[in-house]
Amino acid sequence: MTAVEDQGAVVAGRRMAAEIAEQPAVLQRLVDEGRPCISTTRAAILDRAPRFVLIAARGTSDHAAVYAKYLVETHLGLPAGLVSPSAFTLYGARPDMRDVLFLAVSQSGGSPDLVDTTRRAAEAGATTVAVTNTAGSPLAGVAAHHVDVLAGPETAVAATKTYTAELLALYLLISGLHPGGVAEAAAATLSVVDAAEAAADRYRYVDRIVTTGRGFSYPTALEAALKLMETSYISAQAFSAADLMHGPFAMMGSRLPVIAVTTPGIAGHSMGSVVDRLRAIGADVLCVGGPGGLRVASDAVADALAPLLEILPLQVLAWRLALVRGEDPDRPRGLLKVTETW
Amino acid sequence: MTAVEDQGAVVAGRRMAAEIAEQPAVLQRLVDEGRPCISTTRAAILDRAPRFVLIAARGTSDHAAVYAKYLVETHLGLPAGLVSPSAFTLYGARPDMRDVLFLAVSQSGGSPDLVDTTRRAAEAGATTVAVTNTAGSPLAGVAAHHVDVLAGPETAVAATKTYTAELLALYLLISGLHPGGVAEAAAATLSVVDAAEAAADRYRYVDRIVTTGRGFSYPTALEAALKLMETSYISAQAFSAADLMHGPFAMMGSRLPVIAVTTPGIAGHSMGSVVDRLRAIGADVLCVGGPGGLRVASDAVADALAPLLEILPLQVLAWRLALVRGEDPDRPRGLLKVTETW
Repeated sequence: MTAVEDQGAVVAGRRMAAEIAEQPAVLQRLVDEGRPCISTTRAAILDRAPRFVLIAARGTSDHAAVYAKYLVETHLGLPAGLVSPSAFTLYGARPDMRDVLFLAVSQSGGSPDLVDTTRRAAEAGATTVAVTNTAGSPLAGVAAHHVDVLAGPETAVAATKTYTAELLALYLLISGLHPGGVAEAAAATLSVVDAAEAAADRYRYVDRIVTTGRGFSYPTALEAALKLMETSYISAQAFSAADLMHGPFAMMGSRLPVIAVTTPGIAGHSMGSVVDRLRAIGADVLCVGGPGGLRVASDAVADALAPLLEILPLQVLAWRLALVRGEDPDRPRGLLKVTETW
Repeated sequence: MTAVEDQGAVVAGRRMAAEIAEQPAVLQRLVDEGRPCISTTRAAILDRAPRFVLIAARGTSDHAAVYAKYLVETHLGLPAGLVSPSAFTLYGARPDMRDVLFLAVSQSGGSPDLVDTTRRAAEAGATTVAVTNTAGSPLAGVAAHHVDVLAGPETAVAATKTYTAELLALYLLISGLHPGGVAEAAAATLSVVDAAEAAADRYRYVDRIVTTGRGFSYPTALEAALKLMETSYISAQAFSAADLMHGPFAMMGSRLPVIAVTTPGIAGHSMGSVVDRLRAIGADVLCVGGPGGLRVASDAVADALAPLLEILPLQVLAWRLALVRGEDPDRPRGLLKVTETW
C-alpha cells in the first residue's frame, strides 16, 4: 500500500492502513487463541437447542450480522432474522424469545440501544451472546456469553480489522468448522493490491457508485459501500444482485459505476449474467474476485470464508481513494468511533 | 396533480398518476370487501400458534415486508425476520420451519424465487401465507393461505397502489384492528400535494439524495428512495435514522439533500434531533409530516397506519420529478413489471 506523498499528507490514513495490514495476524490470533473459547460457547448455545436466531448490530457490524444470518440458515439449519432495535426501544415490543438464540455484534460493545435490546432479549427468555472486540464492555456484561474477537484496539474510525475478525468469530461460532488457511489467504490477498490502488484513480471524481454481490458476498457489497461513504463521502449503494435487477436497474448506465463481487463459487458464478446485463447497458463494472477483477486469494478456502478476503482489496481501495481525493480516511467528517443511538 | 404540459409530454406518467389517485378507493375497498376474508385467514394462522415469523419479498413489496416485521414485533409479540431467498435457492438451506409463520408478499405473485422459497418453507413445516394482488398467481397457488389486496390491475411499472394496499392488508392480517378512517385520510393527504409538486423543482438537477425515517416510518424512507431511483434515476439511499448517524453521516452536508419522515408519533418525535444535526452541518432537509413539512393527514389514524399516508406525497414527488426531468415515469429504463430473479 503506497501512501500518497505528493500532497504532503503522508500521515493521513496511517491508522487505517496499519489496521488493514494487520488483518492476517488478527485472523491467525483468533484461530490460535480464540477458537477454544468460541468452541466452548458454541457447545453451550447448541445445548440450549435454539430454534430461531436473532442478530442485532449497527454500522459495520450490521454487515457481519448479515453474514451471520446466511451462516445460520446454511450451517445451523435454523431460520434467522435481523433485529430492529427500534421495535424494542421506541415501541416497547416484548416478543416471546424462548428458544431464541440472540447474537449481538458490536466492535465497542458500547452502543446503548444494542445493550438495551440485548438485556430485553435475555429477560424475554433468549440465550444471548455478545460478539465484541471489548471484553469489559457493557454489551459483554449483559449477555450470557461473550465472544471476544481479539482484534486489539482499533483506532481508525472506519472499521477494518474488527470487521474481518467479527466475520471469522461468527464463522467459528456458527459453523464449528476449522477455517483452514484463511489468515495466509488474507496475507496473499493483501500482497497484491496494485489493481485496487489503480482503481482509486478511476473513481477520483465519482459522486455515486453501486456495489453488488449475492449470498455470502452480499455483506461484502454492503461493507464496501459503507467504507466508500465514510472515507470518501461517495453515495455508495449496495444491492443484492437480485434486488438490483428490480427497480434500481432503471438508474444504472454509463454514468453510474459498479463494483461487483464475483469471487468464484456458487454466488460468484451466478453473478456472470448480472455483470453481462450491466455491461450491455454501458455500465463500468469493476469485478472483485474472479478473472479480470481485483485479485482475491480465495482458492483454498470455503465459499463461506470468501467474504473475509473479498473485503480486503475494497478496504485498500476506500483508503487510497480518500487520500487521492485529499481526505483523511482516519478522520471522517462528523464521526466518532462509538456512535450512540437510541 | 398537475401534468407537465409545456414539454409536450402530457401523456407521460398518466398511468402512475391515475394509480396514485386511485389509492383512497383501493384502501376503502380493501376495508369493505377484503377485511372479512383477511379476518378468517388471521384466525386460521393464529390457531396454529406460530412462534416466529419470516417474511419474503422483493422490490417495493420488500418495504411492505419491513413494515410487516415491525407489526409482528409490536402487535403479535413474536420475533420476526426477513428471508434471504438466496440462502434457499443458491445454497440449498433447509431450515426447520415448524412453528414458523411464513409471509410472502408480491404484487404479481409471479417471481420464481419467491414461489420456490415459499414452497420450500411449506415443505419445511411453515404455515404459509401469500399476500398478492393476483389471486390466480403461482405464489397464491403454493401458499396455504392467500390474502388478496384487491388493488385492481397495476399498469405503471413503478408500484404505488399495490404498495399501500399491501401495507393495509398486512395491518389487517397482523394487528386484527380496524383501520378507522384511513381511506379518508389518504384522500385528504392527496388533496394537498402542491408542496410535493414544488419540491420536484428543487430536485431537478439532483443526482443523489438521502431518505430517512425511524420505526414504522423506515419503510416509507425505503419506498420513497426506490420510487426516486426507478422514475428519476437518482441515487437515492434510505437509512434508518440510527444507521444514518453511524458511518453514512460522514458523507452528509450541503451538497446531499435529505428527505426525512417526521410524521408526529413515537418515531417522528425522535426524528427531531436527527433533523437538527443534519441542518447544523448545512444539509437541505425536506420533512414529510409534521409542521413545515409535506402535509400528511395522519391525525386521526394510529401510528402504525401513518406509513400508508406518508408515502403518498412522496409518490407524487417522484412522479412529478420524473416529468420535470423529461422522463416518463410510466416507462422506466430497462424495467419490466415482473422481474424474474433466482
